[in-house]
Amino acid sequence: MKVYEEFVDLAYEPSKNDLIALFKIEPRKEIKIAAGAVAAESSVGTWTKPRFLPKRIEKLKARVFEIRKKEKLIKIAYPIDLFEPGNLPQILSSIAGNVFGMKEVKALKLLDVRFPRKLVKSFKGPKFGIRGVRRLFRVYDRPLIGTIVKPKLGLNSEQHAKVALEAWLGGCDLVKDDENLTNQRFNQFEKRVRKTIKARDLAEKRTGEVKCYMPNITAEINEAIRRAKLVKELGGRYAMVDLITVGWGGLQTLKEALDDLELVIHAHRAMHAAMTRSRDFGISMLVIAKLSRMIGVDQLHTGTAGIGKMKKEETTKINEFLRSDWYSVRKVMPVASGGLHPGSLPALIKTIGIDAIYQFGGGIHGHPKGTKSGARAVRQALDAVLSGIDLEAYAKSHEELREALEKWKPVKFR
Amino acid sequence: MKVYEEFVDLAYEPSKNDLIALFKIEPRKEIKIAAGAVAAESSVGTWTKPRFLPKRIEKLKARVFEIRKKEKLIKIAYPIDLFEPGNLPQILSSIAGNVFGMKEVKALKLLDVRFPRKLVKSFKGPKFGIRGVRRLFRVYDRPLIGTIVKPKLGLNSEQHAKVALEAWLGGCDLVKDDENLTNQRFNQFEKRVRKTIKARDLAEKRTGEVKCYMPNITAEINEAIRRAKLVKELGGRYAMVDLITVGWGGLQTLKEALDDLELVIHAHRAMHAAMTRSRDFGISMLVIAKLSRMIGVDQLHTGTAGIGKMKKEETTKINEFLRSDWYSVRKVMPVASGGLHPGSLPALIKTIGIDAIYQFGGGIHGHPKGTKSGARAVRQALDAVLSGIDLEAYAKSHEELREALEKWKPVKFR
Repeated sequence: MKVYEEFVDLAYEPSKNDLIALFKIEPRKEIKIAAGAVAAESSVGTWTKPRFLPKRIEKLKARVFEIRKKEKLIKIAYPIDLFEPGNLPQILSSIAGNVFGMKEVKALKLLDVRFPRKLVKSFKGPKFGIRGVRRLFRVYDRPLIGTIVKPKLGLNSEQHAKVALEAWLGGCDLVKDDENLTNQRFNQFEKRVRKTIKARDLAEKRTGEVKCYMPNITAEINEAIRRAKLVKELGGRYAMVDLITVGWGGLQTLKEALDDLELVIHAHRAMHAAMTRSRDFGISMLVIAKLSRMIGVDQLHTGTAGIGKMKKEETTKINEFLRSDWYSVRKVMPVASGGLHPGSLPALIKTIGIDAIYQFGGGIHGHPKGTKSGARAVRQALDAVLSGIDLEAYAKSHEELREALEKWKPVKFR
Repeated sequence: MKVYEEFVDLAYEPSKNDLIALFKIEPRKEIKIAAGAVAAESSVGTWTKPRFLPKRIEKLKARVFEIRKKEKLIKIAYPIDLFEPGNLPQILSSIAGNVFGMKEVKALKLLDVRFPRKLVKSFKGPKFGIRGVRRLFRVYDRPLIGTIVKPKLGLNSEQHAKVALEAWLGGCDLVKDDENLTNQRFNQFEKRVRKTIKARDLAEKRTGEVKCYMPNITAEINEAIRRAKLVKELGGRYAMVDLITVGWGGLQTLKEALDDLELVIHAHRAMHAAMTRSRDFGISMLVIAKLSRMIGVDQLHTGTAGIGKMKKEETTKINEFLRSDWYSVRKVMPVASGGLHPGSLPALIKTIGIDAIYQFGGGIHGHPKGTKSGARAVRQALDAVLSGIDLEAYAKSHEELREALEKWKPVKFR
């Protein structure tokens, strides 16, 4: 349609105030029409021309300024005035709204976004970030080791606190609720937090290390804030939230409250793959990571680079972004989680590095001798890798690691 | 893996308190393993067995109770105790959380969910619904006609109110902001709402009909609530929200506030296709419609059944659900929008029926004589169809319709 072609201008040179989006596109017919349709729908156009069009429209047009037909890639520049500063849902409704449903595209995925400085700065960004988290733990030269209490659901609050205690005593820095565990009948939030923070205090006393608990406050926003306040009152330092199922608008609101409470934000990404994994439609995890850093979570799950139970994805690229300089927004700690065990550590360190949190669920609690031994085995494996010693060799003098490696073989990697 | 097979029990008969999920699945290897992996990950299992497992676990297991290998369909039953009543993000983190990212599946889509009564009743549901909306307008025997002000962005608040006035005078019942329009520099929220509600009052006076404006309050939740209060103060009756980009947690919170303010909720679904359109991964629009009704929006965009500019989808099935009896939760008004024009009406009435809102953007404002004529043309087309008169025949004595049909040909349909 001719009306869409007006949104293609291959001679256009984006300004530094433009937001630039990179899409993978499969056009129904002509790529120029499809690309133009995306730019029109996500800025000021539609399928037919309204009769009254003020001049202002021209200045607000999004423009397709690059088409790489063979690779099926297009770049669109959006004038910054299209967006409301500090309103993430609005930005998403614009650049990632109706476009995925259009007839003109057979496939459309938002792969990357370059946000202009002004827009990024209209959000808060992390309050703690990597440096703040490291300062909290006073640990600077190794990754932080965390665990998800397992079984993920089914323990009562007492059992939950006990498993957490064992994990801390064995060597975990962090203990996290499962993303499915909030306030169920068999394990109520307040009871659980109360008991688990007590266990944390005990673990700190016994080990002399800083230990943290990350309770899952995921709920509608008022309730989530009530829970965060309770966590603070009880001496907690962290709040965990499922950012995708809570959603972007709520996350922004929650972030304000959590900043006031000075709680570190641990963001789980449950449900992200419903929109990140398809190669045809959706939004890349890299874009989700950018949005998360902009709003300001301190820690974000970014996958295990194929080392664990989840599909291999672009973890490295995403982690590089989270740790890079970005308009002086604080850096976000990447979290690797899912199917990890002591034998994963050489691969993890090599692939993901030390500025990260490694979280072990079954790989700790499934240890033949139980949770404490599982946590010990992980710390032993970490010591081995950081000292450049082969895991199997180190295991000879470290019982828990040996037992773990007998159950789970070291992960092979390039 | 053996640990996953324990979550398959084809002899299991679901109880009425179970939540039942229907997934389309493509297994990496064996379907039994992949299906079991999904049930495990979304309830109490993981890739390896924790050493300490309380007996309670057995009662909390999700069970794959049906596998239709050829159709690649599986059904999973989840015990209700897995869920926190009234916590939608938690429910989604469970049944639609990590499962989409698992290695065991090459494709996984959540097609449908049967929610048990107790869970549905832990949410508020619509305050108005179809009956409340019809009562508000005192219109019972025809669809409501709405418009999205176009151009979607670029009008200032004055121009916006003027276009709205024309639309109402021409015959629209409803005027809606675009999903991308919130509070931008060129068109600020407060100014816009103030002027547009004044225009509404004038339109009501001149036409003797009820007219409503649906301002888009999409933002982080505190700001969205502030805007909703302002709308109420200024005499508004509606709030519009982009439910996917605001997100489920925030929507729940917002819903509480909007109920207190007695504002009807119009829900736009911008960005839904990022997770509904892929055939491989994601969540169906039917499931999103169920969640929306459970939380309690009054009106929901459900597509145009292929009549407009969006891809053909299962609009009919979704609308049937929204209008069906469901644990005495109020019915939701379906909204068809996207590429509609007067010539779409015969197809719309035949396919979608009269219990719906039809929204026209370009198809009204792109009328050769402008907005008022465009709205008139739509009402004329509606009159024709409801009287069983052929559009072209009716157009002979109705100028605006004739002009519209000269520009946009009537939509062909089965």
